[in-house]
Amino acid sequence: MKVTILKEAEIRSCVSLDVDAIEAIADGFSRLASGQASLPPVICVDVADNHGEVDIKTAYIQGLDYFAVKIASGFYDNPLAGLPYGSGLMIILSAKTGFVQALLLDNGYLTDLRTGLAGAIAARHLARQQIESAGVIGSGTQARYQIKALKLVRDFKRLYVYGIDPQQVDQYAHEMRSALGVEVIVADHPEIVVRGSDVVVTTTPSRIPYLKAEWLHPGLHITCMGSDTEYKQELYADVLKSADRLVCDRIAQCARLGELHHALEAGLISVDDQISELGELTSGRKPGREHENEITVCDLTGVGVQDTVIALLAYERALRKGLGNSIEV
Amino acid sequence: MKVTILKEAEIRSCVSLDVDAIEAIADGFSRLASGQASLPPVICVDVADNHGEVDIKTAYIQGLDYFAVKIASGFYDNPLAGLPYGSGLMIILSAKTGFVQALLLDNGYLTDLRTGLAGAIAARHLARQQIESAGVIGSGTQARYQIKALKLVRDFKRLYVYGIDPQQVDQYAHEMRSALGVEVIVADHPEIVVRGSDVVVTTTPSRIPYLKAEWLHPGLHITCMGSDTEYKQELYADVLKSADRLVCDRIAQCARLGELHHALEAGLISVDDQISELGELTSGRKPGREHENEITVCDLTGVGVQDTVIALLAYERALRKGLGNSIEV
Repeated sequence: MKVTILKEAEIRSCVSLDVDAIEAIADGFSRLASGQASLPPVICVDVADNHGEVDIKTAYIQGLDYFAVKIASGFYDNPLAGLPYGSGLMIILSAKTGFVQALLLDNGYLTDLRTGLAGAIAARHLARQQIESAGVIGSGTQARYQIKALKLVRDFKRLYVYGIDPQQVDQYAHEMRSALGVEVIVADHPEIVVRGSDVVVTTTPSRIPYLKAEWLHPGLHITCMGSDTEYKQELYADVLKSADRLVCDRIAQCARLGELHHALEAGLISVDDQISELGELTSGRKPGREHENEITVCDLTGVGVQDTVIALLAYERALRKGLGNSIEV
Repeated sequence: MKVTILKEAEIRSCVSLDVDAIEAIADGFSRLASGQASLPPVICVDVADNHGEVDIKTAYIQGLDYFAVKIASGFYDNPLAGLPYGSGLMIILSAKTGFVQALLLDNGYLTDLRTGLAGAIAARHLARQQIESAGVIGSGTQARYQIKALKLVRDFKRLYVYGIDPQQVDQYAHEMRSALGVEVIVADHPEIVVRGSDVVVTTTPSRIPYLKAEWLHPGLHITCMGSDTEYKQELYADVLKSADRLVCDRIAQCARLGELHHALEAGLISVDDQISELGELTSGRKPGREHENEITVCDLTGVGVQDTVIALLAYERALRKGLGNSIEV
C-alpha cells in the first residue's frame, strides 16, 4: 500500500486564508447541518502533568472518497522552551477501504487555518455589512488568523487589541498594521476593545470569564473561539443570554466544550432556546443577521468537518501540483 | 522537527507474540486499574455507506515520555476485492511537548497483536491452570492471534474451531495444526466448540448473539473479544449472568461497546454487581480464578492503554535496532 506524505511547507504552498477555502469550509458546515456528516464526539487527552492537551477530531462526510482524522496538541510550557505552543497532524483515510491515504505533517497549520476560516464564516453571516472597527482579545496565533480571515469578509479601518503580554501585543500590533493596512489600537482593558468594536473575536485559553454583558452594545457581533474544553471560558454566562442571537458550530459539542456549556450549567439558557448552528446559516436554512441593532454571538469549538474539508482541500491541491512523497508501507 | 517513520515490516521485526510483550501489556492494564492512565472515550466513525468503521483510541500513562494515538479501520467489503479487512496506523506523540515523534505505519498489525496479547492475559488469570482443549469461534485474523497467544500461557492438546466459511476454516485448521502442533477439530456448530473446550475465545463481528448459557460447563473460561461497538454481540446476555465471575478490560467501555452493554440493557446485570477489571487481576488487587469449577467470562473491547504500550514497545525496540527513517517536517 502507498501512503503520501506531505510536509508543512508543501501544505502551506497549497492552501491559505483564501476565498475558496472559506467556501469549502462553509460547504462543510452546510453538509453537517443537513445531516450529511457523521461527527463523533471529540477525544480530549489531558496531559495535566505537563500542562498539555491533545484533541482528536474527525468527521465522515457522505459521498466523499476520503475523510480526515486530526490530532492537535497544545502544551502551555512549550513557549518557555522556545517551542511552538501547538502542533499536530492530519491523517487522510480512504472512505472506501479504510486504508491510510496520506499523512499531512502540518504541525498544526491546517488547524489554525480552518479555525480562522470558521471565524470568517461566522462574521460573514452575523456581523453588520458595514463595520468600522474590529476587536480581538488575545495576541497569539489565532488572534492573527481570526483577524486576517475577518478582513476577507468585512472591511474595517481600525483594530482594537487587548493581550496580557505587552511585548507580544506590540509585536502583534506591528504585524497587523503592515499586513492589513489598518490602524491598530492597543487597549489596556478588554472593555475598551468590546465597547469600541463592531465585531469582537475572543481567542484566549482563559479559564476565568472576563467579557461582561454590560459591555455589549447594539449591532455587536462576538465570535468566541477560545473555549474548546469544558474548563475554558471567556464570556460571562449572561453574555449569551443577553445576546439577541446565539449560533454554535455544533450545539451538542458547544454544550460540552464551549461557552454554551457554562450558560447551560448556570441555568441561564436551555437547549430548547432558539440556538442556531452555523451550517443552518451557511446553507440558507436560517437567516444570518436580521437587523442593524441585533447583538449576536457565535460559539466556535471547532468541528471535525472543518478538519476533513481543509485536509482534503490541501491534499487535492498538492496532488495537482505533484507535491509529496509516496512511500510503500 | 523530526518524525521517525516505521513501516510494517520493520515493526514486525521488532515485536510479536512474545512473553515480554505480554508483560508490557499486563503492566499497562495494572496502571489503568490503579488510576495512572488517562483513558478518553473511544471515537467510532461509522462509514455505513461502505460497510466500514474506524476506531480511534488513545491513553496517556502518567510518567511516560510518549503516548500513542491509534487509528484502526475495518471494512467488510475489502476481502471481496482481495484487500485486507483491517488497516490502520499508530501515532506516537511526545507527552512533554505534544509534538509528533513517530508514525508507525503498521497496517493494523500492532492492533492485532495487542488484542491477542490481552486475550492471553485474560486466560492467564482466569483459565484453569491445566487445560485439555481450547476452542475458537471465527477463523479470521483474531482467531489466529488469540489462539497463538493463548498457547503462550496455557498448554492445550486440542483446538475446536467453528467458522461460517468452510474453506477459510480448513485453511485455519491447517495453519494452526502446523503452527502449534495440536489436534484441530472443525466443529459444525459453536455448541460443540463450547461444550468441548476448557477455554473458548469468541472472535466474530456478529451482530446477533449465538453463544448460549445452556452450553456453559464447570471450569469454562470464555474470552469474548468480537464486540467492540454497541451493535455487535456474540454472547446471549444471560451468559454473563450465568458466569460466576465477570471481568472487563474497562467496565465503562464494555458498558458502552462490549457484551456487558447488552446484559446491562437487558437488566440482567447491574454495574453495581461484582464486575472486575482485568488490571485489578494483573496488579494482584483481585484474585484470578479461585477454584476449578468456576465459570468465568472476560469481555474485551480493546483499550487505548494497550495501544500506547505496544506502540512504545515497538518504537523503543526499533530505535535500539536503528530502524526507521527520520524526516524533517
